[in-house]
Amino acid sequence: MIPDSLNNLIESFKMLPGVGEKSAERFAYAVLDLDEDMVSQFAESIENIKNNIKRCSICNSLTDKNICSICEDKTRDNNALFVVDDPKNVFLFEKLNMFHGKYHVLNGLINPLEGINPEDIGIDLLIKRVEKEKFKEVIFALKPSIEGETTSLYIKKILDGMNVTITRLASGVPIGADMEYIDSLTLERALSDRKEV
Amino acid sequence: MIPDSLNNLIESFKMLPGVGEKSAERFAYAVLDLDEDMVSQFAESIENIKNNIKRCSICNSLTDKNICSICEDKTRDNNALFVVDDPKNVFLFEKLNMFHGKYHVLNGLINPLEGINPEDIGIDLLIKRVEKEKFKEVIFALKPSIEGETTSLYIKKILDGMNVTITRLASGVPIGADMEYIDSLTLERALSDRKEV
Repeated sequence: MIPDSLNNLIESFKMLPGVGEKSAERFAYAVLDLDEDMVSQFAESIENIKNNIKRCSICNSLTDKNICSICEDKTRDNNALFVVDDPKNVFLFEKLNMFHGKYHVLNGLINPLEGINPEDIGIDLLIKRVEKEKFKEVIFALKPSIEGETTSLYIKKILDGMNVTITRLASGVPIGADMEYIDSLTLERALSDRKEV
Repeated sequence: MIPDSLNNLIESFKMLPGVGEKSAERFAYAVLDLDEDMVSQFAESIENIKNNIKRCSICNSLTDKNICSICEDKTRDNNALFVVDDPKNVFLFEKLNMFHGKYHVLNGLINPLEGINPEDIGIDLLIKRVEKEKFKEVIFALKPSIEGETTSLYIKKILDGMNVTITRLASGVPIGADMEYIDSLTLERALSDRKEV
């Protein structure tokens, strides 16, 4: 009963995370109510994303150009390298405006069970970069999981010979969290990493 | 810092109802992770919606063709006409599979305060259709509001001379609702429309 073009749009919206039938319908009707210009702009912004967005050839983050704006920025601190496993986390930390060094993005984490090996996530590129750009500190901000641990330990082993300090973000109890809802691994880490007040 | 194409897509998603910064970002990254084919399909489904969807020349509902599938369906009951003020409500009632007559869609409701007069919402088309197709019953399923009431009363006045029964959906307490949260107008209507058990 619903016209095909409307149905196609509803189906498209359902590809988005957390969008079910009801929300997809709401979005589709909202698009119908938009001005023609806005609709074209919307369609274009989707079409363009795959054509325009690529990986920065230095740090592997997302960019419209060959080299991303952070790698190109001469004013940034060249001593510290912030290693993440997902390009979104670059933008996340940039928004906080707390870190002013450089970034490097891994293509995920080592996960032998799923057949993801060190060479699959671009560790070689990271190692070469640390050698070449002579960072004083490499900060791991990887997902706090077994895979994140494995990946940081693997990279640490290789970097150990070079003259570089290797750190990771502190693990522990999130500010404002209810202690009873924190998992035991986090509590264990919070205890072993305890700090004098 | 975020690449322009990514930012444009995030801004596009923010045009959707109930989608803020965080959800828009999540959607944009999800699109980045889709296959190239899916992305093109998504963009196309948006681009097509404005080009393909038009109003049915008989009932004013949304359709891909000149005449919608309901108006074209010879098996439907020609005695009852279901009048709604929004094309989505046609699909809503069709999904329930409760009504098997024809539909007519008004372009909204009469609202003198906002300058929306009877001629703006296509009442003439509805009247002509009732005259021509000789419906036995016209069922109003308009928004239960002052504007909805005004609109149904206005149309009723015109149709009164013709040989047609005019009804509206029952108003009352929704099934499962907490009585204390129901507004007084609804309670009043529920009382005056009370039924013998």
